[in-house]
Amino acid sequence: MASGGGGVEEVTNKQVLFKEYVSGFPKESDMHVSTSGTIKLKVPEGSNAILVKNLYLSCDPYMRPRMKQPTPGSQAYIDSFKPGSPIDGYGVAKVLDSGHPDFKKGDLIWGMTGWEEYSLITTTQGLFKIHHTDVPLSYYTGLLGMPGTTAYIGFYEICTPKKGEHVFISAASGAVGQLVGQFAKLSGCHVVGSAGSKEKVDLLKNKFGFDEAFNYKEEPDLAAALKRYFPEGIDIYFDNVGGKMLDAVLLNMRVHGRIAECGMISQYNLEQPEGVFNLMSVVWKQIRMEGFLVFEYYHLYPKFLEFVLPHIKEGKITYVEDIAEGLESAPAALIGLFTGRNVGKQVVVVARE
Amino acid sequence: MASGGGGVEEVTNKQVLFKEYVSGFPKESDMHVSTSGTIKLKVPEGSNAILVKNLYLSCDPYMRPRMKQPTPGSQAYIDSFKPGSPIDGYGVAKVLDSGHPDFKKGDLIWGMTGWEEYSLITTTQGLFKIHHTDVPLSYYTGLLGMPGTTAYIGFYEICTPKKGEHVFISAASGAVGQLVGQFAKLSGCHVVGSAGSKEKVDLLKNKFGFDEAFNYKEEPDLAAALKRYFPEGIDIYFDNVGGKMLDAVLLNMRVHGRIAECGMISQYNLEQPEGVFNLMSVVWKQIRMEGFLVFEYYHLYPKFLEFVLPHIKEGKITYVEDIAEGLESAPAALIGLFTGRNVGKQVVVVARE
Repeated sequence: MASGGGGVEEVTNKQVLFKEYVSGFPKESDMHVSTSGTIKLKVPEGSNAILVKNLYLSCDPYMRPRMKQPTPGSQAYIDSFKPGSPIDGYGVAKVLDSGHPDFKKGDLIWGMTGWEEYSLITTTQGLFKIHHTDVPLSYYTGLLGMPGTTAYIGFYEICTPKKGEHVFISAASGAVGQLVGQFAKLSGCHVVGSAGSKEKVDLLKNKFGFDEAFNYKEEPDLAAALKRYFPEGIDIYFDNVGGKMLDAVLLNMRVHGRIAECGMISQYNLEQPEGVFNLMSVVWKQIRMEGFLVFEYYHLYPKFLEFVLPHIKEGKITYVEDIAEGLESAPAALIGLFTGRNVGKQVVVVARE
Repeated sequence: MASGGGGVEEVTNKQVLFKEYVSGFPKESDMHVSTSGTIKLKVPEGSNAILVKNLYLSCDPYMRPRMKQPTPGSQAYIDSFKPGSPIDGYGVAKVLDSGHPDFKKGDLIWGMTGWEEYSLITTTQGLFKIHHTDVPLSYYTGLLGMPGTTAYIGFYEICTPKKGEHVFISAASGAVGQLVGQFAKLSGCHVVGSAGSKEKVDLLKNKFGFDEAFNYKEEPDLAAALKRYFPEGIDIYFDNVGGKMLDAVLLNMRVHGRIAECGMISQYNLEQPEGVFNLMSVVWKQIRMEGFLVFEYYHLYPKFLEFVLPHIKEGKITYVEDIAEGLESAPAALIGLFTGRNVGKQVVVVARE
């Protein structure tokens, strides 16, 4: 598709464009796959940007709040998507051209990029260079990327686990949850996870080594279900869902329990969030509940890699991905997160190399 | 009222008896002042108990949950009152007789005692001996007792304040709140409190040195009120009330804010607690919300005294008490906490010496 002109190669650049701010449940049609764009595969003269070919894109729950119309205040921790522009998010990419001294042609990177075939990245500070390529490259959207770092920070820094403690994880087969459970087992904890299908529950028990797992959709009384799995209570709750499950967990926490507030996916598509009624437990049980955002902990990423790579090589940490093929499948893949359609980390392949 | 018999003086012992478990709003008639009891003013032979004359009794919000029928699980952090027996709680008392080597006749103590004229205390581990008597003795139910230690621990240990931070305190003129505000001012913070009457708001501003204060009952929109007082947000919230105020605070917290969960008095009399809807702020703003119970921090009481006594002597810390006279007034004094009738720390005088 190369076209001559000015000596710089220009190619078509398929993109997933964000159409308009979303309220309620997002739909595939809130995005649009466009093939009308073009891009020059060279960094503009004098710029310190890099030009990359996108390989793998990451679908993550935090992207839902980015679809909202920006409002001053409560949720402005990250910019909303810009209507008419490509979605952006975490991805793995290959450098085709670089105006930046830290990057050169052929480098592999992970970090924020566009939902398109090629991206000109002008803000390179947040990018990580990939040095270990003896693992699937797609892992840098999950196990070795933002979700993996989230699981590591959330579990070790926020939950302060001790051997023998009882750990509960919601959305436990997801990109983050499956790792938290495996980390907790490595730490000698008793680990129970919840997920939304039999297939996922089987994964938790048979692939990720959780002690127990249950399908929350089959539990009419979540508090009673938790009481069954934690007769003596929960020491650590790694919360990915918020809402009713959080409420049920509060009733089942132990004294001095810790709750890592990683996300609340059950709430992201509601016009009004659900009420949580059992916060008095926070007082009586001296619970610490703490929110965290992984971006503030990326200085610990090298420490995380040092911890996790040997475990991967020894087969002690495994990772399940749900791979969608091609940019055309990206809108459905992203929407699928919010119905729980994905099994494991949702990745979109744009190109394999 | 002494009566002979067995060589041991026996006297009448007026008591405030707890009648029956309470649901909903407690009433004076849930307690009964009895004059039919008697007590021997001697410790039984061979016992290591102490026999005390009660001087000042403390009315505290945590006593409301103790009126509930005990249920396994969520709120069993402290025993319920026993129907037919005297209410028990914090108080200041004088030792009349002692079978314990650590206590002798004439000692002044504070700690858990009965709502009665005289108490035989068999569990003496939790009692504190009073060494500083150049302050009003009633202060050992408040400023120098459990509420003072609560304010100290909650603010310094849980909130980890920094100079210049913006602090909000609810129930701010109460036994704990008035001290948190003064501690926060001593730490160089900007301090705003809420209370339920003009008189209390005036106290906050004119006596306790809060920068600002407001009457929450006159604010139809609590979130908007907080926005007015904290245009750049709240760094520290010392929560004494829970419920709607907590929900409004969550919307107004700053990134990395801290919430000390000291109590939720707005919820104690409700059959079902209110919902809190804005917990997503905990994630996005990386808020740490932590419950604490002062009993676990009493090893720091000497450190607290060392900190607070010089401030009292220099007039840098002041304390307002609401003193009810006589055991007969105790039921109304306790109930008054839940309507906010008290102005400052609610104390009941049984005897002045």
